[in-house]
Amino acid sequence: MSSAFPLTAMLSRQDCAARLERLRQARPLIHNITNYVAMNSTANILLALGASPAMVHASEEVAEFAAMADALTINIGTLSADWLDAMQQAARSAREHHRPWVLDPVAVGATQFRRDAAAMLIAERPSVIRGNASEILALAKLSGCESDIDDRGRGVDSTASSDVAATAAIELARTTSAVVAVTGVIDLVTDSQRLARIPGGHPLMPRVTTLGCSLTGVVAAFVATGDDALLATCSALNCYAAAGSMAGDRASGPGSFAPAFIDALYQLDGNCLADVEITHVD
Amino acid sequence: MSSAFPLTAMLSRQDCAARLERLRQARPLIHNITNYVAMNSTANILLALGASPAMVHASEEVAEFAAMADALTINIGTLSADWLDAMQQAARSAREHHRPWVLDPVAVGATQFRRDAAAMLIAERPSVIRGNASEILALAKLSGCESDIDDRGRGVDSTASSDVAATAAIELARTTSAVVAVTGVIDLVTDSQRLARIPGGHPLMPRVTTLGCSLTGVVAAFVATGDDALLATCSALNCYAAAGSMAGDRASGPGSFAPAFIDALYQLDGNCLADVEITHVD
Amino acid sequence: MSSAFPLTAMLSRQDCAARLERLRQARPLIHNITNYVAMNSTANILLALGASPAMVHASEEVAEFAAMADALTINIGTLSADWLDAMQQAARSAREHHRPWVLDPVAVGATQFRRDAAAMLIAERPSVIRGNASEILALAKLSGCESDIDDRGRGVDSTASSDVAATAAIELARTTSAVVAVTGVIDLVTDSQRLARIPGGHPLMPRVTTLGCSLTGVVAAFVATGDDALLATCSALNCYAAAGSMAGDRASGPGSFAPAFIDALYQLDGNCLADVEITHVD
Repeated sequence: MSSAFPLTAMLSRQDCAARLERLRQARPLIHNITNYVAMNSTANILLALGASPAMVHASEEVAEFAAMADALTINIGTLSADWLDAMQQAARSAREHHRPWVLDPVAVGATQFRRDAAAMLIAERPSVIRGNASEILALAKLSGCESDIDDRGRGVDSTASSDVAATAAIELARTTSAVVAVTGVIDLVTDSQRLARIPGGHPLMPRVTTLGCSLTGVVAAFVATGDDALLATCSALNCYAAAGSMAGDRASGPGSFAPAFIDALYQLDGNCLADVEITHVD
Repeated sequence: MSSAFPLTAMLSRQDCAARLERLRQARPLIHNITNYVAMNSTANILLALGASPAMVHASEEVAEFAAMADALTINIGTLSADWLDAMQQAARSAREHHRPWVLDPVAVGATQFRRDAAAMLIAERPSVIRGNASEILALAKLSGCESDIDDRGRGVDSTASSDVAATAAIELARTTSAVVAVTGVIDLVTDSQRLARIPGGHPLMPRVTTLGCSLTGVVAAFVATGDDALLATCSALNCYAAAGSMAGDRASGPGSFAPAFIDALYQLDGNCLADVEITHVD
Repeated sequence: MSSAFPLTAMLSRQDCAARLERLRQARPLIHNITNYVAMNSTANILLALGASPAMVHASEEVAEFAAMADALTINIGTLSADWLDAMQQAARSAREHHRPWVLDPVAVGATQFRRDAAAMLIAERPSVIRGNASEILALAKLSGCESDIDDRGRGVDSTASSDVAATAAIELARTTSAVVAVTGVIDLVTDSQRLARIPGGHPLMPRVTTLGCSLTGVVAAFVATGDDALLATCSALNCYAAAGSMAGDRASGPGSFAPAFIDALYQLDGNCLADVEITHVD
């Protein structure tokens, strides 16, 4: 597929490193409404990266907090009806105050409740949507995109490769005006006009819980301090993949991978990063 | 006590290893309604073992999800009234769809709210009940079993040894038709007719939070892919004890124990396991 | 500032070690109503220290449990309206049953909801208040204290040094009759008449999430088994700082710091501790 698109640009490792450095200087406050499983790891990963995480979800304060933070993430992993109400308020506040927000549609294909929730949240116009291939396929279908592949996904883990989701991602980006990131063995990022592929990471990563959810926070931190949401998202994924490779070299299993990955994010510099090729769609 | 029961069977290490291999091949989807403290570690432990964990608790979707998953766990560690309603719905759905479900009655003896909740959940007929000695004693009393030992337990940690709970476990298994597992220095498993004792593990294990809660998920994963709930539960405890011993050899405290334990579960093979003796009750 | 106060007492490292030993013998049951991010780390840190943690928040059981536990902590990190109701019930029960309780006013300056919640909880008369400098400054202002420094704090991380909060802490202790602990690069503890400064710890500590929240649990464990709330709090902070220094020597980033810190708390003995100077206020 990538050969069908002419090369239009390159996000160099130096540019990624400069964006990481800007993030560390700015130390953006990232407001996370995320699932119970991911809260601790998301906070630790954002702190290691250099951002300032906060987890706030009460309907009494969520709009006030979203207006104050530099970016917002909304993750439906352990959704409930009252949290969904707070998520909508927060997303609306973020949009009104010109703060970027990132949607993580965990297991969106699994139940009707999740499909309805995702549709309501997409109506609040996320800046970026990040999911695995199963989730992006389910979301594209939900948003009225036509897609050859039927994959609803049963649980929270993807059963489709990220590559088969490329078409769906481009359609979803077109429909929602969001940057769409599909993470997997090879990550894809598109804003419907540009498409980037980011290799790297490590086979142990799917064996450690909530690394995807935490990546959503990392995307928000880069988008909060970057100018172009696609390039900011690519930088986030590039850093994550590099830290994953470093951690994989040091780990002897998923247990030791987790602290090694956080150390790697903390130690990350430009020499660890790769150049990212960006092609033109159509 | 064990000398009072004639040896009836042996669960060989090879059989345990074969059950572990079957689990890894099947990669069962385990639906966990568990406490906030245990969610992350349960997910990581199930992923390291080779299962696919999901945490879903909203009343809007819990029955739908339980029908789709391969097994369900219900843990009352951080109970609240609305979660209890969802737990009942999920248990009922699991039973209707012939999915096994495992009850973890955390701190059941501590408050009236927990005793009432446990009674309601036992009425939904769990396949397996796993607790520490204090919890199983409290539950047996609650279910009308006579027991010599009075131990309500104050907190979440057991104040009774697992051995003194053997009689209570057998009575509870008889009353509920569930397999009952009492974990401690030596684990006990019974279906009221057979009784197994599983040694192993490590003294650091009670110093790491939610290892018991996570074990409940591991039991569910084995029961989901095994034919005999008692043998499947014994296999789960056998693997857990072996991983605990391996991690204890590598750890210098409870902090380094946790990642070493997850690595050990990931690396586990048949050579690490022990044979399990099973005696006949009565 | 410290030169303005005459030296009145010394909390020796031997006294701290004796208090730690008493805690380990007593194994106090610590009831924590804390935020979702901190639950797992608080439990692990209390277990490593030698206490018995429990997380219980349902309004149906929270008063009953608080009456049974040896101490209570209330942390507003991921506050919601129904939890606030349970917090009040628990605090009231603890006070009626002469149990100490410790307030952790996370991000109290960030929203009106948090300021109102903190005011309601302070009315239940905490034994100890532990926060970072931004939080103590916000709380002092809220309690009618005059303070030169305006620092509301945006997120959960402090933007003020603990030293500038000394005056506010002394005023807050006077107004509330609580021991007030301000943690940061140098920790401060005061009961309005005495003031202690505790150095130590490690620069990586603010890069690991919920170490402050977990410290609140450690303070509760020392206060539950000690006679003088100021000296008990100083001992808790002294142990924490020592474990932080030990972990910092072994860690290569915030990821490896976390398990090393838990190991250090588990291994801690008197030789690791420092003497604590206490000065007289006014």
